[in-house]
Amino acid sequence: MKGEYRKIINITDRESFPLDSGKELPSVELAYETYGHLNERGDNAILIAHALTGDAHVASHNPQDSSGWWEGLVGEGKPIDTKKYFVVASNVLGGCYGSTGPGSTNPDTGAPWGLDFPIFTVGDMVRAQYLLCQKLGIKRLSAVVGGSLGGMQALAWAVTYPEYVGKVIPLATGLAATAQQIALSELGRWAIMTDPAWRGGNYQGPGPQRGLGLARMIAMVSYKSPQLFADRFGRGWQGEIKSRAELLGAGSGWDSWPGGFQVESYLHYQGQKLVQRFDANTYLYLTRAMDLYDLARGYGSLLEAVSRIGGPVLVVGLSSDVLYLPQEQAQIANLCRKAGIETHFEIIDSPAGHDGFLVELEEIGALIADFLR
Amino acid sequence: MKGEYRKIINITDRESFPLDSGKELPSVELAYETYGHLNERGDNAILIAHALTGDAHVASHNPQDSSGWWEGLVGEGKPIDTKKYFVVASNVLGGCYGSTGPGSTNPDTGAPWGLDFPIFTVGDMVRAQYLLCQKLGIKRLSAVVGGSLGGMQALAWAVTYPEYVGKVIPLATGLAATAQQIALSELGRWAIMTDPAWRGGNYQGPGPQRGLGLARMIAMVSYKSPQLFADRFGRGWQGEIKSRAELLGAGSGWDSWPGGFQVESYLHYQGQKLVQRFDANTYLYLTRAMDLYDLARGYGSLLEAVSRIGGPVLVVGLSSDVLYLPQEQAQIANLCRKAGIETHFEIIDSPAGHDGFLVELEEIGALIADFLR
Repeated sequence: MKGEYRKIINITDRESFPLDSGKELPSVELAYETYGHLNERGDNAILIAHALTGDAHVASHNPQDSSGWWEGLVGEGKPIDTKKYFVVASNVLGGCYGSTGPGSTNPDTGAPWGLDFPIFTVGDMVRAQYLLCQKLGIKRLSAVVGGSLGGMQALAWAVTYPEYVGKVIPLATGLAATAQQIALSELGRWAIMTDPAWRGGNYQGPGPQRGLGLARMIAMVSYKSPQLFADRFGRGWQGEIKSRAELLGAGSGWDSWPGGFQVESYLHYQGQKLVQRFDANTYLYLTRAMDLYDLARGYGSLLEAVSRIGGPVLVVGLSSDVLYLPQEQAQIANLCRKAGIETHFEIIDSPAGHDGFLVELEEIGALIADFLR
Repeated sequence: MKGEYRKIINITDRESFPLDSGKELPSVELAYETYGHLNERGDNAILIAHALTGDAHVASHNPQDSSGWWEGLVGEGKPIDTKKYFVVASNVLGGCYGSTGPGSTNPDTGAPWGLDFPIFTVGDMVRAQYLLCQKLGIKRLSAVVGGSLGGMQALAWAVTYPEYVGKVIPLATGLAATAQQIALSELGRWAIMTDPAWRGGNYQGPGPQRGLGLARMIAMVSYKSPQLFADRFGRGWQGEIKSRAELLGAGSGWDSWPGGFQVESYLHYQGQKLVQRFDANTYLYLTRAMDLYDLARGYGSLLEAVSRIGGPVLVVGLSSDVLYLPQEQAQIANLCRKAGIETHFEIIDSPAGHDGFLVELEEIGALIADFLR
């Protein structure tokens, strides 16, 4: 058995789903995938939480299947070994890969929710995943793991359901969104919202492609590192930047004379690639959920929240991460230790920047495999 | 005498001005200001070069005059003492504060140049300033000083006119634009170019305000530092973000529910402020000149270029600068030392980020005053 491949499940049955905002959703569906077998005690499950533009497809289910975003980490004989563990991953609440979100149909109107979709939080995402785990018969999670937004979910899981969660593995994340992270989120949102094709969120069809593409370009600079860009592109020159030529028309002065540097071309390419696979309103809502993330929410302090965690905890960061600074992972580890939780803390020395949690899989795999042992 | 206040001078007389690109401008005017008196030998002048959105108004000329962008550094009895020095500052070639640029009238068409304005470089800016200095009767510059783009000009001055330049003071700058700096430039340019109001550069009147505002917002994040944002804004909440409400309309779901974090409001405010005072096409051209900046251009290597400098050189950086990293100033200093030039190198410990060269005036003033002595 290779697990379940892109299934969608209604987790609310006929009840509504209450949100942190005080509003509620009439019903919630989550798209999910699973790998391996749940044992009879229902306690060998590992939940993997994805980042901003990720999905439930963490790995391929068979040789013909497309690769997942953590292909190197998840599978038979891999660090998260699906011979041993039942792996579950869902597209987050509010996501655009099959779960209920702003692109879903609003039952009151029969049209997409758009901006009428209520604001939701990382806490809401986790509560929805908890209902999914119940549906799947999981009695207790052996571990919760994720990077970036996925790391926020891992921590929120451990704080919200301490009895239900075993080991906790937050990567490249923090205890609460910083002003810098909020600022960068808002740059992307504003790129989308100032695109006339956004139409106040009521777009049909492709929507604000330029705005979403620019949002991705902005984000990519924060996901990488100055060193990575220097190593990979330096001051390399490239004749044409396709998306710019398309906008400006062939032979226009700006495009034909200066052409572009390779790093510019790379950013345009990344922007256009996301536009093919992501929804603009979803980008607004998920980044907002990240802004609102504060592990202390609902508790007296960060220490009070963290003290609820059973643990053990493995905190991992990347040395060159300019978005979720290594000092933030140090803060997580220090607070966990202060709360008396068994804590392992590693900063991987890498020029990959924040995206290192998606690419430095050898080091991360070794750390996770050790920690799960 | 308080110097000359916002004068505009034709530096090319009836000749055309050749550019690094091989193209030429039919004529060039520069807007400039001066402070203090040029001595009879014509050798007590200090040229101050401005940064991306700066102008020639470095300081007030009298108590009724508006403050300049380096008010604390320039004036009688100040670190750059106008009782002793004749200070000259010009709006750069291509600028939008009185100098010939893409917003000027193209004599061939009678309309603004727009994207027909030729691409120009930091080297072109410096050659234009040299002609200005000639017109003003300056026999030799006692010093050249500037931060960021101004620091590039200071270094280019010293390399291009080694006999003409005495002391050299580059702040918060580097030897050549890095891939990271080019990437950030392109984000701002793309914000402008994807604004339909940009119209391929042929806008009339206010032009692409949203795009230019977003470009400024993006830049502001790179000019500050995560620490500064954390200290100043943290996770502080603010009910309404005016520019967002204006875009979305009062009471729209997105605006009325989440309001905004203070750091978002700050970014919007900064974006709107620049839109009131800057031209979008000029932003494209000046950032491109910064991308193209490479001190080695025209020489065999960076070392060969730097070896031309007479010096001495004072290199200054800011510890928290995430745009022009302290390691870049260290590279300047190391190369100058390798070339046998008297070199002073200081990193100011400050959370102000790149903008520190505009705000940490006490430390910078002390360093400059010492160095000029």
